[in-house]
Amino acid sequence: MASIDKKTDLIIGVDFGGTKILSGIFNHGLELAGTLKISTKAQRSTEEVIDRIARCVRDAVDECDLTFKQVKAVGIGAPGAVDTTEGVVINGPNLGWQNVQLKKELEKRLEVPVFLDNDCNACTLGVHEVELGGQSRDLVGVFLGTGIGAGLIFNGKMYSGFNRTAGEIGHMIIRAGGAADKDNPGETFEDLASRTAIFRRIKQAVKDGKKTILTETLGADLDDLRSGDLRKAVRKGDKLTQAIVEEAAVYAGIGLANVINLLNPEVIVVGGGLIEALENVMFDLIEKNARKFALPGVAKGIKIIPSKLGDKAGIYGAAVLARRGLKAG
Amino acid sequence: MASIDKKTDLIIGVDFGGTKILSGIFNHGLELAGTLKISTKAQRSTEEVIDRIARCVRDAVDECDLTFKQVKAVGIGAPGAVDTTEGVVINGPNLGWQNVQLKKELEKRLEVPVFLDNDCNACTLGVHEVELGGQSRDLVGVFLGTGIGAGLIFNGKMYSGFNRTAGEIGHMIIRAGGAADKDNPGETFEDLASRTAIFRRIKQAVKDGKKTILTETLGADLDDLRSGDLRKAVRKGDKLTQAIVEEAAVYAGIGLANVINLLNPEVIVVGGGLIEALENVMFDLIEKNARKFALPGVAKGIKIIPSKLGDKAGIYGAAVLARRGLKAG
Repeated sequence: MASIDKKTDLIIGVDFGGTKILSGIFNHGLELAGTLKISTKAQRSTEEVIDRIARCVRDAVDECDLTFKQVKAVGIGAPGAVDTTEGVVINGPNLGWQNVQLKKELEKRLEVPVFLDNDCNACTLGVHEVELGGQSRDLVGVFLGTGIGAGLIFNGKMYSGFNRTAGEIGHMIIRAGGAADKDNPGETFEDLASRTAIFRRIKQAVKDGKKTILTETLGADLDDLRSGDLRKAVRKGDKLTQAIVEEAAVYAGIGLANVINLLNPEVIVVGGGLIEALENVMFDLIEKNARKFALPGVAKGIKIIPSKLGDKAGIYGAAVLARRGLKAG
Repeated sequence: MASIDKKTDLIIGVDFGGTKILSGIFNHGLELAGTLKISTKAQRSTEEVIDRIARCVRDAVDECDLTFKQVKAVGIGAPGAVDTTEGVVINGPNLGWQNVQLKKELEKRLEVPVFLDNDCNACTLGVHEVELGGQSRDLVGVFLGTGIGAGLIFNGKMYSGFNRTAGEIGHMIIRAGGAADKDNPGETFEDLASRTAIFRRIKQAVKDGKKTILTETLGADLDDLRSGDLRKAVRKGDKLTQAIVEEAAVYAGIGLANVINLLNPEVIVVGGGLIEALENVMFDLIEKNARKFALPGVAKGIKIIPSKLGDKAGIYGAAVLARRGLKAG
């Protein structure tokens, strides 16, 4: 941290989601000086939410005892379909946003260059550059959290598709409905392997009379259940939690097998809040099942690795975005 | 056809599969002079199979009353993982081939330059260049036949992945096994929507005592059932065949929805023998379900189209491969 003082040029990476805004303060070597998190308040007006992002950025700098004059650029990952060239959030369902000029509005408020991409793309970029040294040619980053999203790098470049929505892997159907039931799409990757899925299954099991130590601290309704609680419960030998988390890991393995069969990427990185909290329980099982359910031979030599950046992948990636943007222009 | 005479330079496209070899004779404008099909005899030695490919190429030229001296290049699509640079079939499970120097061996036999790619890549290239004028930036070709395969074009270039096996979409799990059954991967796209799946379901239904006019011409064991029989049965109002073909189309729609969610390509082309025979029954249902099961908004503007090339997509694509190879080299 010694290199980050009041004379150091700063870049800021922002992970902007439907529930929280996380800002990270970096030097050009991508060393992290500190972070600040505030809630998004997505129900408020677009203007107010953008004000909050700007405030989170400014306050993060102050929190690190640095001054905003040091800031050279801000990168930001936003949820939904993003036009990276124009810096527009085309469609952000979590936010209720359509065609919001986020880059322009933030530049007005912050008076530094702002660079925008989709949040999962930013996470993938962060992992690619910071954890893997930018070396892998074809990489898929899969992020397990409240939902499940992915970022895609093909031939060394971010791939975002026709409507800039590529990577919506959480909505991939992996357990289709019954044959006769044409109107039931069945269950998606997210329905089976996200934190939301795990929480739902644990709550249902408790309602069905199953025993878990989770209810001892959280009460029978498990209202304030978090990923960290799952980790603690498994560590204490809670069978129900372990079984449900493992089941999600098997489905995550199937999701990854589908990625291997279809895309055969050099590297699959698995990250997100669920992996950050439960890597020990989930990761090996995810990898084992990904390889087992892939077509024989096609997974050979493919790296499947957990991201160490956890919930910080987004701010690292956004900082990479800002650094690249500065270089380019 | 007037432009293809004994003075015209020829290129040959070969679609080389586990059961048949199809050669097409083209001029440089990709006009087709004629085709010849022989069986692969994959159970014979590698040398003998390569001899058969060479023979099929030479005989196709003769069949068109042209001479082999006119041939400037041969392109070939082969099943399995292919090293396009070295012209090697790295792994061809249908053939039992490993590391076969197909380019070199064919060049030895034919004394013209040979260019090799994977068969689904060749089909996709054919559709991209011949049907779509090479315009679409991101395209996924999905080919429904005995199995289901795909070819991927990202940023205008064929994408083949780390082990050159990208596009194995037929093995994507879309109906995972029961939650508790960790060793049952469930059913793949191919298990649910290929010609094999349709045939299996019809045969099972007949065993279960269901009525179909198919048994009138083919007998109760339906031994010689073909795609064309399905088309005729549907046209004659056979309810069982119609229902089973439609069910496969719904699953194919789910498979395509997964592609749209994950890759958001500009164009999805649906081709292969099953579509060639049953486009009228299947295509609209495939498209409808693909759009229905994709995340709202993400399929907007994406083109989903049937390939008109049918079983000839492979030879057209292989001819494109040969033409490109000549230009590059």
